[in-house]
Amino acid sequence: MPTTTAVRELPHPAREEIRLEAVLHALADPVRLRIVTELSTHGEGEDNGATCSQVELPVSASTATHHFRVLREAGVINQCYRGTAKINCLRRTDLDTRFPGLLDAVLHAAAS
Amino acid sequence: MPTTTAVRELPHPAREEIRLEAVLHALADPVRLRIVTELSTHGEGEDNGATCSQVELPVSASTATHHFRVLREAGVINQCYRGTAKINCLRRTDLDTRFPGLLDAVLHAAAS
Repeated sequence: MPTTTAVRELPHPAREEIRLEAVLHALADPVRLRIVTELSTHGEGEDNGATCSQVELPVSASTATHHFRVLREAGVINQCYRGTAKINCLRRTDLDTRFPGLLDAVLHAAAS
Repeated sequence: MPTTTAVRELPHPAREEIRLEAVLHALADPVRLRIVTELSTHGEGEDNGATCSQVELPVSASTATHHFRVLREAGVINQCYRGTAKINCLRRTDLDTRFPGLLDAVLHAAAS
C-alpha cells in the first residue's frame, strides 16, 4: 500500500509578480551570484536541479540557506523538497520572459 | 583677467574598478532606476547631463542626493560640478564595455 507524503511547498512569486528591483537586489551579492552561476549550468525542472549542498559555497550552511531563500523569494530560483533535501533550479524561462536579456547579461558579467 | 575656479572633483571608480555587485545594488531601487532611466534619455558628457533638480523624484532633496551618490560610487553615473550644481551623466560606455547588455536589459525591464 503506498504511503502518502505530506508535500511541503515553499512560497514563490508567480512569474508576473517577479519585481525587477527584487531580482537586482538578489543578484547584488557575490555568494548569490555564485549560486545562480552554478545553477545556470543545470537544466530547468526538478530533475535537473541541484541540492543546496551540491553548490559549493564559502559560507556556513545557515548562511547558504539564507542566500537560497533570498533568491527564491525574489523569483530567481525555484526550490522544492525531495525528501528532506531542497532541490534548486534557476527560473530561467520566467526571468527571460519578464526581463529579456537580463539574466544572460548578469551571467556573462559574473563570468568575466 | 580670467578668474581661476577651484575645481571640486567627486570620487568615481575607474572603468576597470566598477564591480558588478555594486552596479546591481545601485540599480536595485525604484528611485535610482528612475534616475538612470531619465539620464538614459540624455547623451554622455557634461554638456548633455542633467542637474539633480532636473530629474523629478518623489523624495526630498537630501534623499535624492544620497541616491545620486550611490549611483556615482557604484560607477553608474558621472557627477561633476558646474558652479554649485552637479551635472549627472550615465556612464553608458563604461558600463556597456564592462558588462555588455546589462544596462540595456535593465532599462528595458524598467520601462516595461
